[in-house]
Amino acid sequence: MNSGRYNLVSKEAKKKPTIITVNGVKIGNSKLAIIAGPCAVESYEQMDKVAKALSSMGVKFLRGGAFKPRTNPYAFQGLGLEGLNILRRVADKYKMAVVTEIPDLRDLDVIINKTDILQIGARNMQNSQLLKEVGRSKKPVILKRGMNSTVEEFLLAAEYILSNGNPNVILCERGIRTFEKETRNTLTLATIPLVKELSHLPIIVDPSHGLGKKSLIEPMTKAAIACGADGFMIEVHPNPEKALSDSKQQFTPSEFKKMLKNLKTIAKAVGKTL
Amino acid sequence: MNSGRYNLVSKEAKKKPTIITVNGVKIGNSKLAIIAGPCAVESYEQMDKVAKALSSMGVKFLRGGAFKPRTNPYAFQGLGLEGLNILRRVADKYKMAVVTEIPDLRDLDVIINKTDILQIGARNMQNSQLLKEVGRSKKPVILKRGMNSTVEEFLLAAEYILSNGNPNVILCERGIRTFEKETRNTLTLATIPLVKELSHLPIIVDPSHGLGKKSLIEPMTKAAIACGADGFMIEVHPNPEKALSDSKQQFTPSEFKKMLKNLKTIAKAVGKTL
Amino acid sequence: MNSGRYNLVSKEAKKKPTIITVNGVKIGNSKLAIIAGPCAVESYEQMDKVAKALSSMGVKFLRGGAFKPRTNPYAFQGLGLEGLNILRRVADKYKMAVVTEIPDLRDLDVIINKTDILQIGARNMQNSQLLKEVGRSKKPVILKRGMNSTVEEFLLAAEYILSNGNPNVILCERGIRTFEKETRNTLTLATIPLVKELSHLPIIVDPSHGLGKKSLIEPMTKAAIACGADGFMIEVHPNPEKALSDSKQQFTPSEFKKMLKNLKTIAKAVGKTL
Amino acid sequence: MNSGRYNLVSKEAKKKPTIITVNGVKIGNSKLAIIAGPCAVESYEQMDKVAKALSSMGVKFLRGGAFKPRTNPYAFQGLGLEGLNILRRVADKYKMAVVTEIPDLRDLDVIINKTDILQIGARNMQNSQLLKEVGRSKKPVILKRGMNSTVEEFLLAAEYILSNGNPNVILCERGIRTFEKETRNTLTLATIPLVKELSHLPIIVDPSHGLGKKSLIEPMTKAAIACGADGFMIEVHPNPEKALSDSKQQFTPSEFKKMLKNLKTIAKAVGKTL
Repeated sequence: MNSGRYNLVSKEAKKKPTIITVNGVKIGNSKLAIIAGPCAVESYEQMDKVAKALSSMGVKFLRGGAFKPRTNPYAFQGLGLEGLNILRRVADKYKMAVVTEIPDLRDLDVIINKTDILQIGARNMQNSQLLKEVGRSKKPVILKRGMNSTVEEFLLAAEYILSNGNPNVILCERGIRTFEKETRNTLTLATIPLVKELSHLPIIVDPSHGLGKKSLIEPMTKAAIACGADGFMIEVHPNPEKALSDSKQQFTPSEFKKMLKNLKTIAKAVGKTL
Repeated sequence: MNSGRYNLVSKEAKKKPTIITVNGVKIGNSKLAIIAGPCAVESYEQMDKVAKALSSMGVKFLRGGAFKPRTNPYAFQGLGLEGLNILRRVADKYKMAVVTEIPDLRDLDVIINKTDILQIGARNMQNSQLLKEVGRSKKPVILKRGMNSTVEEFLLAAEYILSNGNPNVILCERGIRTFEKETRNTLTLATIPLVKELSHLPIIVDPSHGLGKKSLIEPMTKAAIACGADGFMIEVHPNPEKALSDSKQQFTPSEFKKMLKNLKTIAKAVGKTL
Repeated sequence: MNSGRYNLVSKEAKKKPTIITVNGVKIGNSKLAIIAGPCAVESYEQMDKVAKALSSMGVKFLRGGAFKPRTNPYAFQGLGLEGLNILRRVADKYKMAVVTEIPDLRDLDVIINKTDILQIGARNMQNSQLLKEVGRSKKPVILKRGMNSTVEEFLLAAEYILSNGNPNVILCERGIRTFEKETRNTLTLATIPLVKELSHLPIIVDPSHGLGKKSLIEPMTKAAIACGADGFMIEVHPNPEKALSDSKQQFTPSEFKKMLKNLKTIAKAVGKTL
Repeated sequence: MNSGRYNLVSKEAKKKPTIITVNGVKIGNSKLAIIAGPCAVESYEQMDKVAKALSSMGVKFLRGGAFKPRTNPYAFQGLGLEGLNILRRVADKYKMAVVTEIPDLRDLDVIINKTDILQIGARNMQNSQLLKEVGRSKKPVILKRGMNSTVEEFLLAAEYILSNGNPNVILCERGIRTFEKETRNTLTLATIPLVKELSHLPIIVDPSHGLGKKSLIEPMTKAAIACGADGFMIEVHPNPEKALSDSKQQFTPSEFKKMLKNLKTIAKAVGKTL
C-alpha cells in the first residue's frame, strides 16, 4: 500500500497524531471521545431529558439530527432550524458541545454558528462542493465513511477538506454495504488500524448505524476500542420505542450508562480512559 | 415485490409510459435516445469537432462535463462556467440539446439556463437537497443510479423529484460496485426490465461508466437495447488518448459511427429505431 | 487486462472458438444451445410431460437435478440415482441429451454413464478435486460461475479442467451476489463479451438462477443473446406452483414456447438461429 | 431475527455454550484457543522449527496445510499425505494437537486418522456432501465461513454437520469478499456476537486470511477477543519470506510471541486467559 496517494492527510505530511480541541475537550488523545444523543431532535423535552442524563455520565458531546437526509421523500426529514436551536439551548444548559449534520451547503452559515462540530454524513462523503466549503471554514468536522466507499476514497475525501484549509477532521467508520442481511451494514473495523498506519487523523466509530441492532453495539464498541478507535458515537434516546427514526438501534440512557461502565476495562487494557 | 413502496413514480400512479420532449425530440418512445460527447469539456475546438461529427450521425443530445466532481481533490475538476458556455454555443451551432451535470445546487440557476437536460450524477443520487431543488424546477433531468444504491433507493430518489413537482425524469443505469475487478463497475441490466415493471419513467443506460472498457461497450449497448432501454449515453471524444479524464473508455467519432450502424438490427428486432 | 494469466483456456492457446458436439448437436456455433427442464427431477410423469413439450419445440438438451445440493440440510435434496434413471429414460424416449449436476465426486462414475453433459454447480466452482476428476474424464461439462467468483477465478476453474485433459468446457454465467435485493442474484452479462475476448470457450447464460424472477427472464435472455451468448439454460416445469424447489422462477412449457418465439428476431439480429 | 431458522445449532436447542475437548484441551471456555502454524507444510525441518517455538509459548494446536486447494491449477498444491505425516510426527513430538484441512471427502479416512481437528475451508463451506460425511464422523471440526456466505448460510452449514451426528463444531470467521481493496478480505467481526446470540457453538477468528496484511493482525485479534471470540488461528512460519504461499501475512515465531504478550490484557479485560 502506497500512502503516497495522499498528501496532507498522510503520515508523511505529519508524523504526530492530530489532536483536535473542541470546547476545551481533546479528541485524538488517550481519553476516548464519547458522542451521544438521539438520531433526530424531536422536541425540547426529549433533548433536555437525554442531555441531562448524558451530562451526568460525563459525556461532553451531544449529537442530534436537525436536518435529516432520508432515502424516502415521505419520511420524517427533521425539525430543521427549530431543531438546531433546541440542540444549542440544551447543550449550553448542560455545558456540552453540539455535533450536528450539515446536509446542504446552503445551510452552512446558519449551522456553523450553532454547532461545535459539523458532521458530514455517509451520503455526502463524495459531495465535493460540500467538502470544499467545510474545508474553507475551520470548524471541526466529523467525516463519515460512505457506505460504498473504499478506505482510499474515504481518505481522499478528507484530503479535500484539509487541502481547502481545515485540518480539524475526525474520521468516522460506520460500515459498508455488503450482501449480509443480518445487520443493517457491515461494520469494518480494520479501517481503524489501517487509517492509523496511513494517516495522522483521529478516527472514531459509529456502531449504531454500522449495525442497526442494539444487542451488537456493546461488543462491537469494545472491539473498536481494542483495535485503536479514538472514540465512538452512539444513538441514545429517552424513549427509543417512540423515536421517529432508527428506533431499533437507540439505547435508553440507563442502558447507555451500563454500557459505559462495561467499556472501562477494555479502554484501560489499551492504555486509554473513558 | 410490492410497488406500493412508491407513489408518483409507480405504474399504479400512471399506467402509460412517460414520454419527455426536449427541444422537440422525444425520449421514451420507440426512437432510442442517443446522448454522446466527451467526459469533460476541454476546449471549444474539442467540442466543435465532436459535435460536428455527432450531429452528422443524427445525434440530437450533446453531453459534456463542465463541473466535474472527482474523488481526488487534485484531479482535473472541469472548466466550470467557461465549459458550460462552450457547450451551449457548440450545441446551438449544430442544433443539439445540451446535457450536463449539476454537482452543486448553488449553481442550479446558472446551469438551468444553459442546459436542456440536467444530469444528477451517481455520487449525488441521494443528495436529497439537490433532488428537491431539481424537483422544483421543471427541467428534464437524467438521474443516474448511485454505485451503491438498490433499485428501490433509485426509484425513491426519483420520487423526490416527482413529489416536488417535476415529472420529467429519465432514469439512467450505470452499474454498481461489486468485488469484480475486470470492469470498472458491474453493469446490472436487469434494472431495465425491473424498472419497466415498477414505473412509467423512461430508463437509459450509460455503458461507458458502467464498464470502463471500450471493447465491451458495443455488446453491452446491444444487450441494453434488447432488454428494453429507451436510449443510451456514450462518451465520445475527438482524441481519447489525450482526454483529461476517462481516456480508456471514450470512443472516437468514427468508432462511434460504426457502433451506431451495428446497433440498428438489434433496435429493429425489438421494434425500435435509432 | 493480461490474458497471459491463463494458459489453455486463453485465446493465445487456441484462436478458433471451441465448438463442442454432444449427441450430434453442436454448442458454440451460430445455432444457440437451448437447455431446459425443471429445477429438480420429481417423478417420471413430471419429466415425461416436460420433455414431450420441450422436444416438440425443438429443444435438444434436457436438464433436471437428481442430486440437489441445498443450503438448508432439511430441504428437499433430490431423488438421487432414481431421479437420474428417470432423466435418462425420458431423454432417450424423446432423443434428447441429458444435462445434470455432479455434486459429489464419489458419484462421478455413476453419473458419467447416465448423462451427456455434466454440470458443475456454482457452489462447486472452486472444488478443485471435482474439477480435476471431471478434467480426467472427457465428458462435456457446463461449469457454472460461483456466486462470489471473479471472472478471473471462473476462467482459472476452467483451466483446472482443461489442464487435466478435458477440452469440452461450456462456461455458464449465472449471476453474482451483491447488495441488491430485488433479484435473487445480480446477472452480470458483461462476462459474456469479456470471456469472448479472453478465451475460445463457449459461454451460455442461466437467467433462471441469475434472477429468480420469472418476468425478467425473457428480456434478460434477449440481452444475453444480443451480447454474444452461445446459448441459455432455463427452468421449465409442467406445474411450477407445485414444484419442490425454485417455484417462483420456473416457466410452464407454454410460457417457454412463447418466449422462444420472441427470441427469434434477436437471435437473427446477431446472425444466429434458435 | 428469528433463530427459529435453525434447529440443532440454535440456543433454543441447547442453552449452555458448547465446550469441545481435544487432547484434553477445552475450546469454548474462558481460556482462549490458540491455533498456529504455517499456511502449508513444506518440510520436516520447517514444521519442527515452528512447532518447537510455538510449543514453548504454550500453544496447544498446530496447524499446517497438507492438501491445499488453490484458485490457480498451476500453483503449489501442498505435499499431500507426506505433509500430513510430517505434521503428525512433529505434533506428537511436542504434544500438540493437529489441525488440518480436508479438501476432498475421498481423503477423509486417511486424514481423520492423522488429525485431531478437521478443518473445512471457506471454498467448501457449502459442499454439502463433505459436511454430511464430516457429520457422520465424530471428529472435532473447524468450519470456516465462506467468502460469499451470509451468517445464516454459515449456521445452516453447521446444521448439516450437527444433524448428521457430530456436535463438535467450532465456527471460524475469516472475512467476506467486498469491494474494498486495501485488505485481502473484509473481516466482519460482528459475526462473533451475532453467533453468540443465535447459537451455542464456539466461534474463533482467522485474521491472517481475513486481512492478508501482517500489520493489521494484532489490532484485529484484540478486537476479536474484545467482542467475544473463543480463540484465534494465526499463520506462523519460521521464514515467512521464503514461504511457498501467503508470504505477506505470516508471522515469525518471535513476532507471534510478542503479539501473544500484547493480547493478555485484552483477554483479561473480558474475563478470559490466553
